[in-house]
Formats: sequence, structure tokens, C-alpha cells
Amino acid sequence: MTEAEFLAALRALPLHPGARGLLDDTAHLDGLILTTDTIVEGIHYLPDDPPADVAWKLVAANLSDLAAKGAVPEGVMLNYPLRAVPPAKAGVQLGDSTNDAYSSVTIAFPTGPRPSPGRETGWDEAFVSGLDIALRTFAVRLLGGDTVSLPVNAPRVIALTAIGRAARAPLRAGAREGDALYVTGTIGDAGAGLRIARGESGPADLVDRYRRPTPRLAEGKALAPSAHAMMDVSDGLLIDAARMADASGLGVTIDLAAIPLSAAYRAFAGDDRAARIAAATAGDDYELLLAAPAGIPLAARATPIGAFTAGTGLTLTDGGTPIPLPTTLGFQH
Amino acid sequence: MTEAEFLAALRALPLHPGARGLLDDTAHLDGLILTTDTIVEGIHYLPDDPPADVAWKLVAANLSDLAAKGAVPEGVMLNYPLRAVPPAKAGVQLGDSTNDAYSSVTIAFPTGPRPSPGRETGWDEAFVSGLDIALRTFAVRLLGGDTVSLPVNAPRVIALTAIGRAARAPLRAGAREGDALYVTGTIGDAGAGLRIARGESGPADLVDRYRRPTPRLAEGKALAPSAHAMMDVSDGLLIDAARMADASGLGVTIDLAAIPLSAAYRAFAGDDRAARIAAATAGDDYELLLAAPAGIPLAARATPIGAFTAGTGLTLTDGGTPIPLPTTLGFQH
Repeated sequence: MTEAEFLAALRALPLHPGARGLLDDTAHLDGLILTTDTIVEGIHYLPDDPPADVAWKLVAANLSDLAAKGAVPEGVMLNYPLRAVPPAKAGVQLGDSTNDAYSSVTIAFPTGPRPSPGRETGWDEAFVSGLDIALRTFAVRLLGGDTVSLPVNAPRVIALTAIGRAARAPLRAGAREGDALYVTGTIGDAGAGLRIARGESGPADLVDRYRRPTPRLAEGKALAPSAHAMMDVSDGLLIDAARMADASGLGVTIDLAAIPLSAAYRAFAGDDRAARIAAATAGDDYELLLAAPAGIPLAARATPIGAFTAGTGLTLTDGGTPIPLPTTLGFQH
Repeated sequence: MTEAEFLAALRALPLHPGARGLLDDTAHLDGLILTTDTIVEGIHYLPDDPPADVAWKLVAANLSDLAAKGAVPEGVMLNYPLRAVPPAKAGVQLGDSTNDAYSSVTIAFPTGPRPSPGRETGWDEAFVSGLDIALRTFAVRLLGGDTVSLPVNAPRVIALTAIGRAARAPLRAGAREGDALYVTGTIGDAGAGLRIARGESGPADLVDRYRRPTPRLAEGKALAPSAHAMMDVSDGLLIDAARMADASGLGVTIDLAAIPLSAAYRAFAGDDRAARIAAATAGDDYELLLAAPAGIPLAARATPIGAFTAGTGLTLTDGGTPIPLPTTLGFQH
């Protein structure tokens, strides 16, 4: 099934009211906000990425969803696979570590190239160290989790569930006609960081924006009371703004010239239309996107970059002049 | 790392008080009980197992942990991987479906034998159908989740987090000297079912006990007010009882002759000492094990099978006569 088909099938299951129709990034229960994200080796991170960065990003991506609801993180639960190291006798798997008698079953898996010893040895230790740093940095604590065995060579699949508290959580679908669209921080730094991580020359602090994003927890908490709608920017500013407008039954106009770029980004990629489109369609920013009345004072810094309008779809302007949409608005699932 | 090493490393992280030192199967927050379990293809289930049974068991295993805390299930969150089907061009992966720009990276994975079309086609659909049945059967609703792409041939890793409510949740570590040890239902049926599923001849209802275990939600809620300690029996009666005693700083004596066996089990495996030891060391029962004062009336049916004593360790008797412990007490992680 495709993701869209799978989600449609899930929506036909008995849904909790706190699931909000599976239309938001979080679930709501008793004043608690719950969100979960999974990362897969080779899909969301590369086998050679530093494990501590993988842990950081897993925590940050989850906390970013809490930030977008104005929530204060309370705790996280971790689902972690311990991968079997290549055994002397191929095909023998390590035992199980959840509650299941299937665990004693021995199954041979396709064996491809062996993981290099440098990747396997110490990966778990380094991941836990990175988790420790991330938890301490964001003042969040471990609530529980589950550890399972993974066959040799299987890509790691690591899940984290984050739980926070929020008095009032703005949804993705809440923008009103005439609201301004605001974004926190600067856009495009992580996308530039990915390009630098892949070999282009550029400053290391952009790579840090990519590898160690900062969830905007303080900003989210401060902005939530004023926000009619809020979500994090993870797949690209344009696509995420279009999703907020769509969920709210509105159209949205964004002015490319208003999108905040960092000095480091401008030094790396320039400041022309192409550079601005690249920034607005790259992912992994983990900034917050919100709909709020135009002109009201906000309790945290955010840049107005557009407006919600009657109608549907995304309209792009550059200094007020309408321009064609790029072929890709961001990452599409 | 081994699971023990990994857990030790996790215990050095900032722990939430509700994590209870990571010594229980559940976390506790604001009267909510949280638990999470992961299943891995080839470790916890076989590639040829019916997907609907895999979904059922994932739900049942999680709800069983809630049952052991006397909790009423409120909702579940699902982390589900959509596996790429073998593409025409090997090494090209499907896109991502969480919030991560890494998703556009294309990586070649070791390609072993192709999954048979019969296994891949319709697996997701059948899993969701099984999930639907399990949720409706246990009156629990979907709260949220996450869907990711998985490379071709990678074993599926599926996680579920279950959330319930409990006024008072008995811990694993709470048995008192002189308490009786009780168990609900009958023991060994699932283990016999696994043998039958693997080819021995025997009744299909034992296979059902293995493939579609029933979490003892009503029993757990009824027994919790009387229980000094409670946990579910998932790795084997003897090993789980030994863990409860160890967590409580006590020893425990179990009388093999008192262990409740079903008529179907006795017809399949007999009723001699070997059959009783097989039942008491097989896993996947998902019955409840509890410590409560001897002789008090219990609000749900449970069989007294032993007693907690000062000291440490497990002592086994058969009709009151001490007998040697079997070499394996159950599934050891």
C-alpha cells in the first residue's frame, strides 16, 4: 500500500477523539499531547551518520511536533533494536527481547555485505550517549520503551514517542481568512547543511543545523495562545504551508522575498530567486509555521511571510509580483 | 550491546519518575499507564504468519501489559513500515514518510531472495483488517502513529504503544512475605499451540491460544485492588514468577501440581511432571500472575499455585515434594 492508502485504511478503524481524525501530527489526551516518529536506516539517516546525531535528530523531530502544539515535553518512550552481529554460523539469530515465544525460532535471513566493524561496534553506546545529550539539552526524561533483537544486516528501525503537556494546542487546521502566515527563525539552513554534508563546500554550522536541529519549544509555548493554527516545517516551507491552508479550507499566498534567510545561508547559496526557492522547498528546518491575525504583537519572534485567503492552493509572489510555483514544493510522501 | 547492557545504559539517562526505574513493563503518568512493544519479522513472527494474527498479537501483547496494571485501555499508537516492493531497477528505494529530507537519498541495500508476491501483496491490507478486529474486540481506539518506508527485503519492525487508565496500578515489585502466588486461566496452551503450528498434530483451539491470545483486561481490573504485585505471563510461568520474586526481594515456591492446565492441554501433552514443566516454561500465555494475601476472596478467578517466602530464588515442588528446577525456566532475553 502507499502511505495515502494506508492512512485511508487507518481512518476507517475505530478512532479515538484525541486522534483528531489522524489529520494532525499529534494526539491529544487529558491535556497531554502525544506524538511518535520512526527513523529507518538508509531512509531517514545514512549508515555512516554519527549515531549520536541520529539520536539527537530523533528526539528533536518528535519534540518539534510538541513545540508546534505549544506543549512542554514531559517524557519519551524509545523502541530500539539491538542488531545481531554477524555470527560465526550464518543464519543464527540472537534471541528475542519482547514478550514472545517466537523468539526462540531460528530463521536464516538474506546475508549481504557484512556491516563494517567500525559501524557496528559502539553504535548502540554512541546512540545512547547522543540520547543522553539530547534529553538533557531539552530537559526531557525517559519514560520507558522496548528493546528488540534485529537480524544481522537488517536496517535499524528506531521509534520514539514523545509526551508533553499543553493547556491549549493549536491544530494544523485552524487558519482563518485574513490571518497572516508567520515562520520562526530562518529557513533553508538545514537543506544547505545537507548539501555541505554531501560534499559541497560551506560552513560547518549549516551542517549542524541539519544534523542537530533545535525544536522551537520556547517559541511554540509562547506563540500557541495567539496561533489559530500551528505546525512545524519539516518537509519544506512551501509544502507545509500549503498543507496548513488545505487543512484549514483556505488558500495561502507567500512572498518569497519575505522568507527569512540566515547570513550563513546567503553566503552559501546567495539571495536570488533560485536561492530563495531552494530554501523554501528544502526540508528539516524544524521551525514553526503559524497562522495568526496580522499585526498583533506575538510573544516570540516570528516573521510574517504571507496571508491566508479564501479559495484554495498556494500562490507565490516575489516582492509582491506573482511568480510560477516551482515543480517541487518540498518533500512529498 | 546486549539487552542487559543497553538497559543499564538507559538507566543512567535522565529518568522520569513515572518510568519506575525502568523496572516494570509500564510507565505511569497522571493516572495513565503507558506501555510499548515492538515486533520484528523473523524474530517475533514468521514471514508466513497470517498478517491479521500478527496485528492481533501486537495489540494483545500490549494490552496484556495494561491488564497487569488493572488498566482500562484508552488508545493505541502504531508505528508501521510500508515496505518497498522489489522495483524494476534494483537499489532504488521508495520515498520517505516521516519528516526528514534524508528521504530523497537513494541507497542500495543488500538484495537477497525476493519476497514471494503472495507475502508482499495484500500484507498491509490484511494487517489493518486484523488491527480493526483486535481494536473492536478489546474496545480500544487508534490515537495516532507514524508510517515510514522500509527498504526492499528489510524485515518489518512494527511498534505499538498502548495507553490506559488505572486508579491504582500494582507493580511487579510489591509481593510481600507470606503472600500467595496466583495465576489466572490455564498455562501452557499457547506453547502447545506453537508446537501444533509447527507441525505436531493437535487441536486448532490451542493454535488459537498461541496466535490470538486474550489479554486479561477484565480480570486485571478486578484483581488489581487486591494485588500487592501483578505482571503478565509472557516468557514462561516459572521465569516470570522468579522475576516477580526477585523484584520484590523475596523467594517464591511454586507447586507444579497446582498449576492450572486446560483439558485440551492435558489431552495434547498429558498431565505428568514433564508435561507440567513444559507448560510452566512455555511462553505467550498472557495470563496474569499476582501476589495477594493467601485465602482472601478475589474478584476474579485465579488459582493459587505457590507462596512468597523470605530469601531468594525459585523453589519448585510437585504435590509438596521439592523437585529439581528444569534447566530452562522460560524465555530468557
